[in-house]
Amino acid sequence: MRVKQKLLLTPGPSPIPPFIREALGRQIIHHRTDEFKEVLGRVSQSLKEIFFTSSPVLVLASSGTGAMEAAVSSFFSSQDKVIVIEGGKFGQRWKEIATRYGLDVVNYSIDWGSAPDPNYLKQLLESESKVKGILTTLCETSTGTVYDIESIGNLTRNREVILIVDAISGLGQDKLLTDEWGVDVVVAASQKGLMLPPGLSFISISKKAEEFLRRSNLPKYYFDLNLALKSYQKNDTPFTPSVSLILGLEASLNFIREEGIHNRWKKFSKLAKATQEAVKAMGLNLFSSRPSNSVTAVWAPSSIKSSQLVSKLRKEYGVSIAGGQGEFKDKIFRIAHMGAIDEDDLVVGFYFLEKVLKDLGYSLKLGSSIVKLEEVLYA
Amino acid sequence: MRVKQKLLLTPGPSPIPPFIREALGRQIIHHRTDEFKEVLGRVSQSLKEIFFTSSPVLVLASSGTGAMEAAVSSFFSSQDKVIVIEGGKFGQRWKEIATRYGLDVVNYSIDWGSAPDPNYLKQLLESESKVKGILTTLCETSTGTVYDIESIGNLTRNREVILIVDAISGLGQDKLLTDEWGVDVVVAASQKGLMLPPGLSFISISKKAEEFLRRSNLPKYYFDLNLALKSYQKNDTPFTPSVSLILGLEASLNFIREEGIHNRWKKFSKLAKATQEAVKAMGLNLFSSRPSNSVTAVWAPSSIKSSQLVSKLRKEYGVSIAGGQGEFKDKIFRIAHMGAIDEDDLVVGFYFLEKVLKDLGYSLKLGSSIVKLEEVLYA
Repeated sequence: MRVKQKLLLTPGPSPIPPFIREALGRQIIHHRTDEFKEVLGRVSQSLKEIFFTSSPVLVLASSGTGAMEAAVSSFFSSQDKVIVIEGGKFGQRWKEIATRYGLDVVNYSIDWGSAPDPNYLKQLLESESKVKGILTTLCETSTGTVYDIESIGNLTRNREVILIVDAISGLGQDKLLTDEWGVDVVVAASQKGLMLPPGLSFISISKKAEEFLRRSNLPKYYFDLNLALKSYQKNDTPFTPSVSLILGLEASLNFIREEGIHNRWKKFSKLAKATQEAVKAMGLNLFSSRPSNSVTAVWAPSSIKSSQLVSKLRKEYGVSIAGGQGEFKDKIFRIAHMGAIDEDDLVVGFYFLEKVLKDLGYSLKLGSSIVKLEEVLYA
Repeated sequence: MRVKQKLLLTPGPSPIPPFIREALGRQIIHHRTDEFKEVLGRVSQSLKEIFFTSSPVLVLASSGTGAMEAAVSSFFSSQDKVIVIEGGKFGQRWKEIATRYGLDVVNYSIDWGSAPDPNYLKQLLESESKVKGILTTLCETSTGTVYDIESIGNLTRNREVILIVDAISGLGQDKLLTDEWGVDVVVAASQKGLMLPPGLSFISISKKAEEFLRRSNLPKYYFDLNLALKSYQKNDTPFTPSVSLILGLEASLNFIREEGIHNRWKKFSKLAKATQEAVKAMGLNLFSSRPSNSVTAVWAPSSIKSSQLVSKLRKEYGVSIAGGQGEFKDKIFRIAHMGAIDEDDLVVGFYFLEKVLKDLGYSLKLGSSIVKLEEVLYA
């Protein structure tokens, strides 16, 4: 079959709606003008709303990993002790970055697909002396698992410990109440729930984190959040911002505000639930014990390599889903429901997924996942 | 007067042609696919051509300063001695970054608007022991000055010293023969000669620089060129690339190749010459003793603050030029001729510039700069 239309169901990039693509293709404006500063001012305000914080949310010209590095190098000092929750590829990334900067990493390693236990974390905080930070993840993209950030926030709120959360894939789908939950730093990026191309990252900074920022002695320049925060007060950036993506961001944030964030959380919760049930209706099993609303990870049938499934789906039908990462590369596949992905996309995606599974020798009744999807979606 | 059409004559961002804006507004493609890897492969090849190097040219998701930092943190080790040529804002930036990373900076400070003396540099290399690198600039954007990189390359070629050149504003207009001149590392960015929005940066790495890269012990992650170089071999990137800007980049590079780089150098040399003569025809003086082909810096009349001139020109006529930086903030203004800026843009720009100068009380015969512009342009 000839691919008629491509469909992205990957946990980043997610599809870009036409009204955002229009903004991305506009003629450039100069970044040191009132015109651009006004855009940046409005965007900063809207970001605070979707981050649920009254603290500054900075916009960086980098992909999400850049903002993760900014968090490590801007808030800590050499040999500071931090707890990293490693339950997937992005927990590993925290560990790698913190190690590169010479932090003393206490690694809380959990099975991929599981979520950290707040009680264990509490013990860890009590037994380890002088922990300065916890680095963790809202939605661990590699496993489709959402962590209980609210409970972790309860542990750090009254300690001299800052809680740093990578919400790169979770923001916009998985509930996150930054201030209310006591999260000090939230890192996010453009190409997931915000429906933009990759290239922008975001980082929020609580008052408590600001104190850490002032004390930090690690080398940095481009990602020095002291510089970024100073410019932020004047709706400016220390280095040339990614202007076109920020014009697109404004379009995205206006759209999200109009739909309402709570409404979107509800919608993605339903899309996630429908995806989970549809997967089970095909006789397959979920990978995660605490599935997120942003991406669903699924065990491939034991007879099928998930990488082959993903590749065939993309090449023959133009549908992109993600395979597994790390040791689960050939064992799981992941379907995203984030950003602009909607119920129709999921129905189309599952239609082709069923076809490919059948082609690869998996026995299932065609249409079974679609019946289940619609049952949940339109109940 | 109502602004009918905006005109950007700033040394970054420069105007984006429609065929590039079309590419920027395309639907996103996934970056871990053959489709994208093929784009990256073609783009890498074209970048080598315009960098005049057979070495890898890496594409980073950051503005130009990010690539400058990558150069410092990836090629050097703590306390390495480097010579920085400080003759403007971007020489200062090298100094700031190198200082942040604990390098031993030998500062060769020159008057803003002048170019470094290769003979003095030679003496410096002979008198200072164990210099590991020279950090300098092709076109110092803040002063509109082009440096004699070829002569500096002759000094480093046979020494254990790498030559790192910030060509962010110069690339595409000011001649740069990376390999032939013995330049080890060239840093560039998207929003100048390449006619793109800001958000991409580039860095080339000679064989000699690769050895420095392997020895470097400074902390880094997002800008670790070891990781980037490893991915580069597979037409991949270690972290999510800025996909839409790279699609735009391909359109830009195809266009530049079609016109021919030597032809473009010739064109910008003529635009620069015409701009210089037009400025003089208005009775004004050039700021630089070695003017670049990318941007022309001009002393404002002593009775006029250049910041006021720039602001009035933008607000009343929609024409953006740049003011001065640092201590020359109110003393000079700068007109860019780079990227997609052409002779017609300059004529329109000077028409409005004359009007504003006259409005501000400067005495000149209206049209005098335009006559001179056309004289040079259409000789």
